[in-house]
Amino acid sequence: MSIRQIEAYEPLTLLSVVSFVKEKGLIPKESRVHCEEIGDGNLNLVFRLVDQSTNQTLIVKQALPYAKVVGESWPLTLDRARIESEALQEAEKLVPNLVPKVYDIDYTFAATVLEDLSDHVILRKGLIEGKQYPHLANDIGTYLAYTLFSTSDAALSPQEKKKRVVQFTNPELCQITEDLVFTDPFFKSETNNYPQELQPEVSELWEDSALKLEVAKLKQKFLTNAEALLHGDLHTGSVFVKEDSTKVIDPEFAFYGPRGFDIGAFFANIILNYIAQEKRIADLGKREEFQAYLLEVIEETWQVFKNTFTALWQESAVEKFADVEGYVNYVLAVTFEDTIGFAGCKVIRRTIGLAHVEDLDGIANLDAQLEAKRAALKTGRSLILNRQNITNVKELVELVRSANS
Amino acid sequence: MSIRQIEAYEPLTLLSVVSFVKEKGLIPKESRVHCEEIGDGNLNLVFRLVDQSTNQTLIVKQALPYAKVVGESWPLTLDRARIESEALQEAEKLVPNLVPKVYDIDYTFAATVLEDLSDHVILRKGLIEGKQYPHLANDIGTYLAYTLFSTSDAALSPQEKKKRVVQFTNPELCQITEDLVFTDPFFKSETNNYPQELQPEVSELWEDSALKLEVAKLKQKFLTNAEALLHGDLHTGSVFVKEDSTKVIDPEFAFYGPRGFDIGAFFANIILNYIAQEKRIADLGKREEFQAYLLEVIEETWQVFKNTFTALWQESAVEKFADVEGYVNYVLAVTFEDTIGFAGCKVIRRTIGLAHVEDLDGIANLDAQLEAKRAALKTGRSLILNRQNITNVKELVELVRSANS
Repeated sequence: MSIRQIEAYEPLTLLSVVSFVKEKGLIPKESRVHCEEIGDGNLNLVFRLVDQSTNQTLIVKQALPYAKVVGESWPLTLDRARIESEALQEAEKLVPNLVPKVYDIDYTFAATVLEDLSDHVILRKGLIEGKQYPHLANDIGTYLAYTLFSTSDAALSPQEKKKRVVQFTNPELCQITEDLVFTDPFFKSETNNYPQELQPEVSELWEDSALKLEVAKLKQKFLTNAEALLHGDLHTGSVFVKEDSTKVIDPEFAFYGPRGFDIGAFFANIILNYIAQEKRIADLGKREEFQAYLLEVIEETWQVFKNTFTALWQESAVEKFADVEGYVNYVLAVTFEDTIGFAGCKVIRRTIGLAHVEDLDGIANLDAQLEAKRAALKTGRSLILNRQNITNVKELVELVRSANS
Repeated sequence: MSIRQIEAYEPLTLLSVVSFVKEKGLIPKESRVHCEEIGDGNLNLVFRLVDQSTNQTLIVKQALPYAKVVGESWPLTLDRARIESEALQEAEKLVPNLVPKVYDIDYTFAATVLEDLSDHVILRKGLIEGKQYPHLANDIGTYLAYTLFSTSDAALSPQEKKKRVVQFTNPELCQITEDLVFTDPFFKSETNNYPQELQPEVSELWEDSALKLEVAKLKQKFLTNAEALLHGDLHTGSVFVKEDSTKVIDPEFAFYGPRGFDIGAFFANIILNYIAQEKRIADLGKREEFQAYLLEVIEETWQVFKNTFTALWQESAVEKFADVEGYVNYVLAVTFEDTIGFAGCKVIRRTIGLAHVEDLDGIANLDAQLEAKRAALKTGRSLILNRQNITNVKELVELVRSANS
């Protein structure tokens, strides 16, 4: 029986995905293949295939032409699959050990064939369970330094960089961020999602014009500053970990934006976990130990980022002004300030905006959950408003600690 | 005799340009047409056509596939003709009285058919002759406010704006600015062009690391901040004037960049004329009167820009944060600071970089010319280094005055 040729986009099925992969020669035609769909079904189909003769495994990730969020469905470009896979390829050139391998990109099907990382767990899940990952900070700091340096004007000719800005123009997915991170949480918006008990704190936020002015400035940076190719959604659900390995996945929000946005997204989600653990870990000693670990992750991630970025800059910057005294430190200072501000926006949006995090929402005791969410709002606001006064990462960590003690 | 069909790019000639325009129906086929080439031949051919039966006139501007600068020739994309004509069309929608009418765009020929403005003169020439234009500041301030507001994220949906960023991606012409404005003048570079007598001042500039750090920051803004669709080369040679009319021409350097770059380019060229007139107008009373006029142009241009931009913002901003207290003033403050810095870079590059201005180079007495150039370098440096301390346009005008008294 011949395998049916598929020539136009259609959602893959448990059956057709096997043909799809065999036609590409990634699994021999004669192999028996076990296949399951393991995605959450909101934006993408994710299939895991096992060649039963060799036990070789593969992931096929296919974009769906719509997004499902809280029961609603809206059309969403398939072009994001191209952006995601091309962003992964860029990262693979720079930090091959920190991203899944890309075996194939199929533009017709908006599908990417990827290395299977089933031996890893999602970092968010690991952190919620109180697990520590000794390589995490070093790996993420390294990932951030390589990707944020090597895709910028410091490392590329302006002509090459402008080509990539066009290549990674991602209006639809950027709009999700523009709306759900930077806008809706700060106004009475239908997409917001918070328990009624938080209304006083939320109303206070909406009336806080000093805060809104700072958020407007941060949003403007997100809209205009094409500094580097970002992951675009670097929360702890976009990181796979195991004891000795870290993999950054899912860069479908990739675009050219301000460096601090990726670092801030990661820090925000570590901070959200820190706040949640205040209520989750009952044993004081264990809690303090784990929270100290989380703050060390922030501190070490920044230090590794900063040192690696500086070394890359000194070794390989093509920008003629690169050696001018103070220039790389200026770039790092701006990135740090932006990081703190973007982290603050992300903490707030994950608390009262459309998309939440399990760290907070999974706190079983509802009063404790409300307390944690109030602490998150307070911390987010403080990060945004104080970002210009915080000059080093120890002060940042201190702000997080003191806002939650 | 049939007119020869032209189907692929070739440089137009006095003969073929007539057929070209008649085929488009812009001049009747039976008309006798007088035609002359009036361009400077460096980058473009510019033909002026007169229909001798109606005296109707037209301009045909065609991009050449190379640029000639100081005898050298390098290839240059014809796509700049598309960018120029599409940028003109954008401006025509916003400020129809302040740009030439576009009658036709021919992508094959990289040619645009434009309104003839031969009754106007180039502003640089007029200012060198000491002529005052009473509408100039109001017109340029209005042009800047409409173009810099209406093409930005404040006025367009982020999706529409991102489309335009791609449409106006202009790597080759941006590179000319990146090299000749922001880089080469601040390093020992082959493209630099200055009299040997200035070597001490030039060397001092190259060793001034505080200055170079600030120029690096400004260059980074130019490379990364896609705030609004800029003209990209708004010097006084890109403005046509007569007593009661102002027309901004030649936006072939158009791209999405920082708002302050256009305003700074205009101010820089007014400042260069101010410095040159110190040596050009012998009569003290006349000189002071004309220099006062030039400073008024700067002051009024900024005020008109600021007021018009604010009014447009208040009336028609689509950005949800637009009404947040202090936001428009923040945008204007950043724009003003950038304006001053970019003006400083432009003053320096027109003094020691590749492309000079007639205002300075045309000063017949060589000692006086050298003095003027020294004053220009001093003024440019002061603008760049003091841009954060100057909080209003009166202080800017005062800086220019005191740096040259």
